[in-house]
Amino acid sequence: MVANQNLTEFISKHKEMVEKELEQRMNDLNCPAIIKQAMAYSLQAGGKRIRPLLIFATLDAFQLPTEYGLEAACAVEMIHTYSLIHDDLPSMDDDDLRRGKPTNHKVFGEAIAILAGDGLLTHSFQTIAGINHLSSEQKLAIIYELAHAAGPEGMVGGQVADIEGENKKLELKDLEYIHIHKTGKLLSFCVKAGTIIANCDQKVSEQFEQFAYHLGLAFQIKDDVLDVVGDVEKIGKRTGSDIEKNKSTYPSLLSLDGAIEKLNDHLQKAKEHLANIPLNTVILEQLTDLIGIREN
Amino acid sequence: MVANQNLTEFISKHKEMVEKELEQRMNDLNCPAIIKQAMAYSLQAGGKRIRPLLIFATLDAFQLPTEYGLEAACAVEMIHTYSLIHDDLPSMDDDDLRRGKPTNHKVFGEAIAILAGDGLLTHSFQTIAGINHLSSEQKLAIIYELAHAAGPEGMVGGQVADIEGENKKLELKDLEYIHIHKTGKLLSFCVKAGTIIANCDQKVSEQFEQFAYHLGLAFQIKDDVLDVVGDVEKIGKRTGSDIEKNKSTYPSLLSLDGAIEKLNDHLQKAKEHLANIPLNTVILEQLTDLIGIREN
Repeated sequence: MVANQNLTEFISKHKEMVEKELEQRMNDLNCPAIIKQAMAYSLQAGGKRIRPLLIFATLDAFQLPTEYGLEAACAVEMIHTYSLIHDDLPSMDDDDLRRGKPTNHKVFGEAIAILAGDGLLTHSFQTIAGINHLSSEQKLAIIYELAHAAGPEGMVGGQVADIEGENKKLELKDLEYIHIHKTGKLLSFCVKAGTIIANCDQKVSEQFEQFAYHLGLAFQIKDDVLDVVGDVEKIGKRTGSDIEKNKSTYPSLLSLDGAIEKLNDHLQKAKEHLANIPLNTVILEQLTDLIGIREN
Repeated sequence: MVANQNLTEFISKHKEMVEKELEQRMNDLNCPAIIKQAMAYSLQAGGKRIRPLLIFATLDAFQLPTEYGLEAACAVEMIHTYSLIHDDLPSMDDDDLRRGKPTNHKVFGEAIAILAGDGLLTHSFQTIAGINHLSSEQKLAIIYELAHAAGPEGMVGGQVADIEGENKKLELKDLEYIHIHKTGKLLSFCVKAGTIIANCDQKVSEQFEQFAYHLGLAFQIKDDVLDVVGDVEKIGKRTGSDIEKNKSTYPSLLSLDGAIEKLNDHLQKAKEHLANIPLNTVILEQLTDLIGIREN
């Protein structure tokens, strides 16, 4: 990753923070060892931790201690990780590798992988309900937003639309539906969680929401682009899999140049909304740039 | 089912209430049609609705309108239904029939079945977070208890222990661990949710908890007994499947007579705790009797 010094430090500090907390939370569970291992295996498999970082970066704009977002960060990473475990299953994407490591079901078998996903999903809500330092209203708002972003009207709906769209030539609006739901809603949740924790007013929250919307689309278009031009070593999984699976993507619908143009357009719009926010959003701005230039 | 007149009316009224509400909630979802159909298919597949009924019966003891428990009843039925969908999958129990109907993955395919389960699980938390008529503290307490009862330290942990125990001769304490977690915790949640909604004091809540603990074990022992002596027509699935799968059960560890004795012992203890509660618990008492004599 190419990032400036401040952002590099911000990322490394907060990645460590959330990874340590996730490890601790798994260790503390009183449950059969194998399920604990299976959940921890995928949680610890690395990744960019972009969702936790978005929560922390949003809190940073309010000059709030980023620790205030630690439980929400763990919760969203549990949900993201469960979705990867289930997506990789033989009856879904049937992937053997994830971030360069064998997928959960390859190590623990399908039954335990399904249950590890179920366990992470369920535990994410307990994690938020158990927060000490927020008001009940804040915790409930976060739970509602998280369930909505991850459920049938959010990520699960997007995944279903993605499956339904396989081997079909989609229109751009269908592709956007998939991405907004499959990836965008959970990314937007992270920014929203930050504004809930900060008790942000409605008008500023709307700018954050618009920012997150464009960032989410940019993130997914970049993913599609990397599947065409990315370096397999850096991505940690096969490239070209979208083409192999005959999946509609931004490059396949708009050409590679058209997709890159759309990517830059969304990055630009995201930064315009940030500029409308009367706070120091420098870390969010740098994260936005990083999403545009990331190589994995 | 054999039940006296009052209980029969109570059951039929409240089953209809929760089934109608579940149908409405699925209809209201803004998501791809196929996932809505898949979730609704399994929600509408019938069943005893024992979990919702336990919530309603607990509220009845406090002479509270049973409608107060409607969202919690929907949420717990969503969680119970998700667990059945995932348990039936080829990599788990590989069941083709559930309540006499083809299982979810037989109708919708494995990928959609996994996602229907994920969707129901996630949406259950949104359902509780969205309740209008309870305090934020009550809603959070219900969410915490539900996630704990359903997650790695509850139902998911019990399911994992069940899988790990296949083809092994278990000790009674291992079998109890499985049942307390796989079935008992979610049944106990229902009674707990009722006491949270009723703002019940600690001392009485403890009696309700002990009641629910024994009821949960009785329920599962009865399930094991029915797998040996039950009528396939009434149960709606094959009997003898535990023996086929070489699963440890109460009858296999204690003999059929021993299992029935243990069942009666737990029913007796459940009713003793009910008797310690200074409320009119007649419906809970009748439900307890019904669990002992049920034929499916």
